[in-house]
Amino acid sequence: LAADARTVRELFVTAHAAERETDLLRRAAAADIRVTLVTDAVLAELAETVTPQGVVAVVAVPSTTLRSVLDRRPRLLVVLVGAGDPGNAGTVVRTADAAGADAVVLTGGSVDPYAGKCVRASAGSIFHLPVIAGVALDDVLAGARDAGLQILATTVEGTAVDTLGERLVRPTAWLFGNEAHGLPAAALAAADESVRVPIHGRAESLNLAAAAAVCLYASAGAQRR
Amino acid sequence: LAADARTVRELFVTAHAAERETDLLRRAAAADIRVTLVTDAVLAELAETVTPQGVVAVVAVPSTTLRSVLDRRPRLLVVLVGAGDPGNAGTVVRTADAAGADAVVLTGGSVDPYAGKCVRASAGSIFHLPVIAGVALDDVLAGARDAGLQILATTVEGTAVDTLGERLVRPTAWLFGNEAHGLPAAALAAADESVRVPIHGRAESLNLAAAAAVCLYASAGAQRR
Repeated sequence: LAADARTVRELFVTAHAAERETDLLRRAAAADIRVTLVTDAVLAELAETVTPQGVVAVVAVPSTTLRSVLDRRPRLLVVLVGAGDPGNAGTVVRTADAAGADAVVLTGGSVDPYAGKCVRASAGSIFHLPVIAGVALDDVLAGARDAGLQILATTVEGTAVDTLGERLVRPTAWLFGNEAHGLPAAALAAADESVRVPIHGRAESLNLAAAAAVCLYASAGAQRR
Repeated sequence: LAADARTVRELFVTAHAAERETDLLRRAAAADIRVTLVTDAVLAELAETVTPQGVVAVVAVPSTTLRSVLDRRPRLLVVLVGAGDPGNAGTVVRTADAAGADAVVLTGGSVDPYAGKCVRASAGSIFHLPVIAGVALDDVLAGARDAGLQILATTVEGTAVDTLGERLVRPTAWLFGNEAHGLPAAALAAADESVRVPIHGRAESLNLAAAAAVCLYASAGAQRR
């Protein structure tokens, strides 16, 4: 199950899932979490998906601020500027978690990270690290700079990420733009460097989540070597 | 548009798209490709998607064999073993193209790479490099070995990809397993090495397409340095 016992408020399960998830229900009982048996039809409605897993948890949305994240001196920050696809955004959250990032920030105009499709694509990671939505781009840029982070903006041009070498050791905020429109001029202007994932074949570009995986793992590798 | 003029057999466009895509229609006329004006409703039906772009092309599915790919001495081969999600498979094709891979092979039991969702996720890349479906796993493994490729199997355990160093310079076939079940034992047993993308945070795993991006770009970087 995605969420911690700390954040789960209530569980809905089908009879079929209840037979399978005995350990989950035992833990819910121990944590005094209310469990309600529902039919498959009710569960499907609750889960907002055509192939639900038989369990729906009502969880508290974690509340964190950009300020509190920056105060903890992050070394790897992921900033989605105007992300338009919830599946992509969720996958980036999952990848950021895997790469050991400190937080994911979505600027105003991005998708809601707590929408069902995004939560599912995050595979639970949205509850593992701070995910802060609706922040003004200027505030992220100024905050990241004040916290001593270098700002790397991903574009189709710029420096190839695999040639950045030791520059990736520094604490970094990575900016990723909208799938169709890329980053706004203000983000590019504020960045310390524009960075691209090199395209060796005939693809015009990489999917946002794939590009983020390459960039974030490049940082993680350099910072943890 | 995704496909080359070589592979396009026919075009369907809405009146609105025709006004916008004057260059496309000029190229279609020059290549003697039949163009049919259709209503938005007909186009939506043809496009099998809720947000079509106003143009549908009928294209010939390229036919390539594993044999012909291996005969050309590939340096980077992507093998999806039992891939279950068409969106993931299409994104891997796009990433393979971007990383300069020579071909993508899907073993029997994988999704159909020419299904609409997979083609869309590939963003045209499915027409850029050979994509071969329905190959028996044993044939891929034996063929790759005969062609002098090392076989790297991705698992949640194994050697961290960022510690492989010079070993990634060798011509390589990367094996990626099913999203839920991973690689079958036969694939792991046949591989020269099991490789993992290290998980630094609390995520249980990476999305298939994100893991493929990290692995394929690690190979591309080593081979092209």
